[in-house]
Amino acid sequence: MRKMKGGVTTARGFKASGVYAGIRHKKKDIALVYSETDCVAAGTFTTNLVKAAPVFWCKDILKNGIPKHGMIFNSGIANACMGEQGKKDNYEFAEAVAAELKIAPESLFVGSTGVIGQPMPMNVIKKAVPELVTALGDDEAAALNATEAIMTTDTVPKQCAASFMIEDEEIEIFVGGMSKGSGMIHPNMATMLSVVTTDVNIDEKLLQEAVSKVVSETFNMISVDRDTSTNDTFIVLANGAAGNEKIVKKNKDYDNFETALMVVCKDLAKQMAADGEGATRMIECKVRNAKTKEDAVKLSKSVVSSSLVKAMVFGADANCGRIMCALGYAGAEFDPDHVDIFLETEIDGDEKKLQLIADGVPTAYDEEKASDMLSQKEVTIKVDVKAGYEKATAWGCDLTYDYVKINGDYRS
Amino acid sequence: MRKMKGGVTTARGFKASGVYAGIRHKKKDIALVYSETDCVAAGTFTTNLVKAAPVFWCKDILKNGIPKHGMIFNSGIANACMGEQGKKDNYEFAEAVAAELKIAPESLFVGSTGVIGQPMPMNVIKKAVPELVTALGDDEAAALNATEAIMTTDTVPKQCAASFMIEDEEIEIFVGGMSKGSGMIHPNMATMLSVVTTDVNIDEKLLQEAVSKVVSETFNMISVDRDTSTNDTFIVLANGAAGNEKIVKKNKDYDNFETALMVVCKDLAKQMAADGEGATRMIECKVRNAKTKEDAVKLSKSVVSSSLVKAMVFGADANCGRIMCALGYAGAEFDPDHVDIFLETEIDGDEKKLQLIADGVPTAYDEEKASDMLSQKEVTIKVDVKAGYEKATAWGCDLTYDYVKINGDYRS
Repeated sequence: MRKMKGGVTTARGFKASGVYAGIRHKKKDIALVYSETDCVAAGTFTTNLVKAAPVFWCKDILKNGIPKHGMIFNSGIANACMGEQGKKDNYEFAEAVAAELKIAPESLFVGSTGVIGQPMPMNVIKKAVPELVTALGDDEAAALNATEAIMTTDTVPKQCAASFMIEDEEIEIFVGGMSKGSGMIHPNMATMLSVVTTDVNIDEKLLQEAVSKVVSETFNMISVDRDTSTNDTFIVLANGAAGNEKIVKKNKDYDNFETALMVVCKDLAKQMAADGEGATRMIECKVRNAKTKEDAVKLSKSVVSSSLVKAMVFGADANCGRIMCALGYAGAEFDPDHVDIFLETEIDGDEKKLQLIADGVPTAYDEEKASDMLSQKEVTIKVDVKAGYEKATAWGCDLTYDYVKINGDYRS
Repeated sequence: MRKMKGGVTTARGFKASGVYAGIRHKKKDIALVYSETDCVAAGTFTTNLVKAAPVFWCKDILKNGIPKHGMIFNSGIANACMGEQGKKDNYEFAEAVAAELKIAPESLFVGSTGVIGQPMPMNVIKKAVPELVTALGDDEAAALNATEAIMTTDTVPKQCAASFMIEDEEIEIFVGGMSKGSGMIHPNMATMLSVVTTDVNIDEKLLQEAVSKVVSETFNMISVDRDTSTNDTFIVLANGAAGNEKIVKKNKDYDNFETALMVVCKDLAKQMAADGEGATRMIECKVRNAKTKEDAVKLSKSVVSSSLVKAMVFGADANCGRIMCALGYAGAEFDPDHVDIFLETEIDGDEKKLQLIADGVPTAYDEEKASDMLSQKEVTIKVDVKAGYEKATAWGCDLTYDYVKINGDYRS
C-alpha cells in the first residue's frame, strides 16, 4: 500500500472537469467526475433531518440498480430547503449533464454545497453544461479543476490518492478522491462533499461495507463547529478498469482495498479539519483504553468539539482543565480520577511529549513548553482513560476570530 | 406575584457579604449568604462526570439532615480536578467560615468557580474569613457585594427577586437570588453558580420538587458554548422567616411559590445568556407545536447552541437556512416541509414580526428588515414545527470575536 499524490483522476478510466457557470462570483462552481465504464457505487449521507434535494436524489439512485457513471457538483447554492423546486432543479441538472454524456440521469450522483434556502440558477448552470463535458480530462489538472470548483470557504483544494497490489494477479489498484468542507462540519457524517474513485473490480455490497466502516473512522471523526450540515455526501465509484478478478469476499485483497480507502479518506478528513473555517491549527485527540468503542468515539469527539478547548489551542494556553471538562460531559463511562492526558507534537522534526494530567490531577508541567507545543500546526491531545481496551481518534481545529468573521458575514 | 428589584437579601432573615481575599487580582473573590434561622434546602448540580470538590460536598450535605444556614463561594479557582487535596481544601473553607459563625461546616453549601486544575490558596482564603463574616449585611449593598464576588468573566452582576402573597394569611413571601455564569455555559445544568433565598416556610421535599421543575425550564434552557462545566450548582435556601403556615402539599400557595421561583430563575437565566462571554445580543428560541416536550427542548436548544446561528446573529445576516439546519440535527421528530420560522423583536418599543420560512422554504422576506431585527439586543426566533402540542423556550447569545479572545487567553 502506498499513499501518493493524486485525486479523482488517478484511478484508470476516470475523468474530471470543473468550470465557471456563474453561480458564484468569478470562481469555478460546477464539477463533473466521470467514468465511461459502468461503476458500482456506495455512499453515506447526512443524518440531518433537513436534507438537501441532491441528498434525496443520491440516496434514491444508489438503490435503483442502474450502473453509475459519475457525479456532478455545484458550489454556491446548497439546494436545501427549496421544496419541490429543489428536487426539480436537481433533476434538471443531472438530466442536462446526462444528455450531453448520452447516459441516464439516474447514473449521475449530485452534490451541492453553499447557501441553504436559495434557488439554483438553472439558466446559468445549463448554459455551462456543454463546456463542463468538453473540459473533461484524465490528468492532474482536470482533477484539480474539479476540486477547486467544489470549494466554498475552503482555503485549499483537498485531494489524496493511494494504491495497493492485488498480489496474485500483479495488478496495481488505484484509489483517489477529493473533498470540500470547512464550515458546518460535524460528524454524521462530517459536513462535506467528497467523492472517491477507484478502478478496483469489487462487489457493490462489499464496497458499501468498506465505505461504511471507513467513514465511521475518518469523516465521521472530524468536527469544525458541531453543525451537521444538510448536504453531507460521500460517494465511492468503482469502475473495475483495473481488470482484477472481482473481489466478492472479505479476503486479503478486500483488506488491502479497505486499507487504501481508509488512507485516502483519513487524509481527506484531516485536510478538512486542518482547513476548518478560520483555523490556524489542527487538533487531534487520541483516546486510549476506553471501556467501549462508542465511549472512545464520544470522548475524542467531545474534546475536539469543545469551544473552550478549541479557543485554548488558538490561544496556545494549556488550560488543561478544559480537556477534563470536555471528557466529563461526553456521556462516556470512566473514572475522572484515573485519567492521564498528554500533549504530543512535532517541533522542528523532534517529537515532543508532555504530560498535563496524571490520575485526573494536573502535573507541574512547564507552561512555556506546553504553550510552545500548542503553537504548532498540528497538536495531538492523547487521553488515557484506563477503563478498558478501546480507542478512537478525532480531528478538529482551533476556534479563531476568523471563524466568527467568516460566519458572521457568509453571504455577502 | 410581583417581580422586583432585589437579590439574596430580599427575603427576611438572609444576610450576605462579599470581600477580597486575594485569589483574584484586585477583585472581590469570596462571598457568603447566611441565615441565622435554620433553612431547608434543595439543589441541582452539574451532570458532568468530572465534578468539582464543592459539587460533591453540596450533594453530600444536601442529604445529611443537618439544618442549613447558607452558602459560601469563591471565584478564581474552580477547585476541580484537584483530587483529595481539593476535597480537603473545600472542607477547610467550610470549616473556617462555620467556626466564625459558630455553626456546623455541614450546614454550609460551597460554590467555587474559576480555573480548573489549580489549587485553592487556602492561606489567603482563611485569612479573609473573619472579614467575610463581619461584613455580613441584610441590605442591597451587601447582596451586591456577594454577587460581585462570584463574577468571573461576567460583565454585570446578576440578581433578581419576586414576591407573592399567601392570601389566607396575608403574608408576603419573598424570593431573591443571584447567579454568575458567562462561559462554559450549557445546560445539565447550565454552567453557573446560583443561590436563591426565600423566607417561605415549606417542606424540604416539596422545595426540591419545585427546584427541579423550575431548573428544567430556566437554567437548563440556556447555552453559551455547549460546554457543560464541572461546577454547576444551584441551591435554594428557605428559612421560613415569613412565618406562614408550612406548605406541605401542592396547593395554591405552592403554585404561587413555584411561579415566583420560576420568575426569579428565568430572569437570572436570561441575564446569564445575555451576558454570555463576548456576547452582544441575546437569542431566544421559542419552539411551538412539537411532538413531545423532549423534542421541543432539543429543538430550541439546538438553535441557540448552533455556532452558525450564533455567528449569523452576530453578523445580523438572516441566513435562515442555518436555523433549519440546526433544527434538522437536533434529534427531534418533525417534518421539515411543515416548518414555519419567524423573527420577533422589539424596535423602539414597537413589536416586529417577520416570517423567514413557510412550510420549510424561505419566504421572500425583506433582507434589510431582517437585518434590522437581528441587530437588536434581544432577538426571538420562533419556530412552529406543527408536529404536536408541546413547547419550549431556550436562551443563548451570539458568537463574537470577543468570545474567542476571552477564551483564547483566559488565564493570563
